[in-house]
Amino acid sequence: MNLTHDPQARSWLASANQPGCDFPIQNLPFAVALRKGAQENARGMVAIGDQAIDLAQLAMAGAAAGFSGLAGEALLAASGSTLNALMAMGPKAWSALRLGLFNALKAGSPAQAAVQPCLIPLADLAYRLPAQVADYTDFYASVHHARSVGKLFRPDNPLTPNYQWVPIAYHGRSSSLQLDGYAFRRPRGQILPPGASAPVFSACKRLDYEFELGVFLGQGNVQGEPIPIDQTEEQAFGMVLLNDWSARDIQSWEYVPLGPFLAKNFCTTISPWIVTLEALEPYRQPWSRPASDPQPLPYLEDRSVRERGAIDIQLETWLQTEAMAKAGKAADRIATSNFNHCYWSIFQMIAHHTVGGCNFQPGDLIGTGTQSGPTQAEAGSLLELSEGGKTPLTLPNGETRTFLQDGDTLILKAFCEKPGAARIGFGQCAGTVLPALG
Amino acid sequence: MNLTHDPQARSWLASANQPGCDFPIQNLPFAVALRKGAQENARGMVAIGDQAIDLAQLAMAGAAAGFSGLAGEALLAASGSTLNALMAMGPKAWSALRLGLFNALKAGSPAQAAVQPCLIPLADLAYRLPAQVADYTDFYASVHHARSVGKLFRPDNPLTPNYQWVPIAYHGRSSSLQLDGYAFRRPRGQILPPGASAPVFSACKRLDYEFELGVFLGQGNVQGEPIPIDQTEEQAFGMVLLNDWSARDIQSWEYVPLGPFLAKNFCTTISPWIVTLEALEPYRQPWSRPASDPQPLPYLEDRSVRERGAIDIQLETWLQTEAMAKAGKAADRIATSNFNHCYWSIFQMIAHHTVGGCNFQPGDLIGTGTQSGPTQAEAGSLLELSEGGKTPLTLPNGETRTFLQDGDTLILKAFCEKPGAARIGFGQCAGTVLPALG
Repeated sequence: MNLTHDPQARSWLASANQPGCDFPIQNLPFAVALRKGAQENARGMVAIGDQAIDLAQLAMAGAAAGFSGLAGEALLAASGSTLNALMAMGPKAWSALRLGLFNALKAGSPAQAAVQPCLIPLADLAYRLPAQVADYTDFYASVHHARSVGKLFRPDNPLTPNYQWVPIAYHGRSSSLQLDGYAFRRPRGQILPPGASAPVFSACKRLDYEFELGVFLGQGNVQGEPIPIDQTEEQAFGMVLLNDWSARDIQSWEYVPLGPFLAKNFCTTISPWIVTLEALEPYRQPWSRPASDPQPLPYLEDRSVRERGAIDIQLETWLQTEAMAKAGKAADRIATSNFNHCYWSIFQMIAHHTVGGCNFQPGDLIGTGTQSGPTQAEAGSLLELSEGGKTPLTLPNGETRTFLQDGDTLILKAFCEKPGAARIGFGQCAGTVLPALG
Repeated sequence: MNLTHDPQARSWLASANQPGCDFPIQNLPFAVALRKGAQENARGMVAIGDQAIDLAQLAMAGAAAGFSGLAGEALLAASGSTLNALMAMGPKAWSALRLGLFNALKAGSPAQAAVQPCLIPLADLAYRLPAQVADYTDFYASVHHARSVGKLFRPDNPLTPNYQWVPIAYHGRSSSLQLDGYAFRRPRGQILPPGASAPVFSACKRLDYEFELGVFLGQGNVQGEPIPIDQTEEQAFGMVLLNDWSARDIQSWEYVPLGPFLAKNFCTTISPWIVTLEALEPYRQPWSRPASDPQPLPYLEDRSVRERGAIDIQLETWLQTEAMAKAGKAADRIATSNFNHCYWSIFQMIAHHTVGGCNFQPGDLIGTGTQSGPTQAEAGSLLELSEGGKTPLTLPNGETRTFLQDGDTLILKAFCEKPGAARIGFGQCAGTVLPALG
């Protein structure tokens, strides 16, 4: 077993050893941030307990903290204002840096004195996007989501004939990527009122969230040279929470024939901490699909995917309305699911994306598509939870929701947890709806 | 009239005054390039006749060449290895730089001695992408293309009900943007053979080109703050030729419900020289659509668009097969059309793109969609020219084509030309098909 997965390992930082902590010594996720209000460049950070290690400051401590060779190179690459350089170094470097951090943070480490001055409380951080995302792609990899949404958009043809063969995806908009905590205006656009033959220009009336995970890519590939499925694992740097905010009424009018556009490109939010694929290792699971379904074509078929292509990540959706916030009430949990229901693994997504010759660059982002589970209570969107707006959710304070209202804050959370392994948390990805322009 | 549009203006550089020259003193398009084989950074260039002005070298000559104030700032911004900084400065700066260059290049200019050492023959240039394109969007703005392609993909429903209301678009892939002269591998992917119920993995058998124009964006907008239609003109820096290479068989299998993905993302090529919107000014025309068609919603309606939203750009498609190249035969012209047939103006595209809050950044690229004219001979793709592969084109050497074969070089050319105005050329955008991976 990789040392860094030892569930018994403890840090000299007490907050990292608390039960339920998202960021124990076995996690070590990466972000880019700076101290709130500071006049300094943002730089790479690693979370531990309720603190973050300022990697730029740690790089200056360098050898005293035990970093040299590849781990030292990787630490330097991670101290810039984006993590693209670290992502470009590949899995050996990621692993060496992670091990160096683990050793420096574990109880009794001689590096403690050198690391201690590099700590900043998480509460003091202002986050930035962790990478310059040149291209962002969004998949559609949950068959449960595809089937239930398909039923609403295309009652006669809920699951398109290609769905079980092709990991369906579309290109997203990277300019409007934002972080946890962002508040965005309700979009406006063309909507076709029920029964009308001409559209109207209106604020979106069916504003929704989509619970997705995001994957940050590593080294990438040369244009024209696909990444074989058995090399895809080396390409996944780590994962974040991703909310693909969606304007359902704009979407249903615009999406034929070229797919969603304004319905999705006004805002996409991600969580600031990238949980590395290596940290998720203890939660890898076999990937399979019903024997009655078509099995993957050879370019999407791989022993490693079969044996451990799925990842056991528990997903929770929380909602806090404006009325709740004003009354001092915390958010309510409105749905739970698990990423291991996903119909296509992230490795199949990477292989498919490049098989025609398309190239990834370090820091590119993939969304997995809405992660809905097999039951309606496990849905990853309000469209599904409210059955297309027909069955409102009733919240504990008596308010009801079919779609999001102005002032609503929608929060995605996720974590891995099971006996015999350390908890690996993702933190959260929240976003708040502001009223549309007048 | 803007001085730089004077059709009588002549340059001290004789090649710029030749009839038929793409780059007379009234054009002054921008590119990024370096001398072939040189150990230097790429930098901004402006074409004049058969030469380019090295803007980095000109910036060092600075005042001697007559540049100061805003024109000097813009010249400095254009001397870097991308034009993003120039694009971010906005139309006053673009115009000042253009006027400075015009004055320095016109016959009798006292700046001639300072400019002369900055000239490099076009034949000696190695081009780079003119901007770092953060996001690339592709529209579908030719109704003639939409109708004839729609007929092939959806015989019952060629023009979708939204088409005349929504400037349909999808997000494209910026990582695989390439320049004129690029040779790319024929993509492979999933294809559904006729009559089959399961797909096969195969090299694309219906490889096509799409003749589009590209628009490079200027300053952009803040997320959540749309660009009003009457301000869109200030956002268009300039235009290039764009070939949206398309794998028709991959596309027809994958594109429902989220749009084309692998069918398009293996390669998109553009011409290296960006013709500024200002240079195209004499070719602006009224924009209209049949009175029997729905007229644009107010956010897409504007007096300036009505009066001069269309642009009279003549389009020519040329094909040189491998056999022709081996026999020393030049390319044959297989189609011609005009950009003024476009159903949506580029200004409406910009307004629509941002109306929901999506943000543009300087250097973002918009494709106009395939520019097909009203008759089949004016089609902008082989799919249309060959009626879905049913009617092969016969070339003068006796070869036939439904779709592109390995070794084919497809060349887009465009120019503006009319009595009383100088010719404004775009140069060309060629690409060559290499065999698929084995």
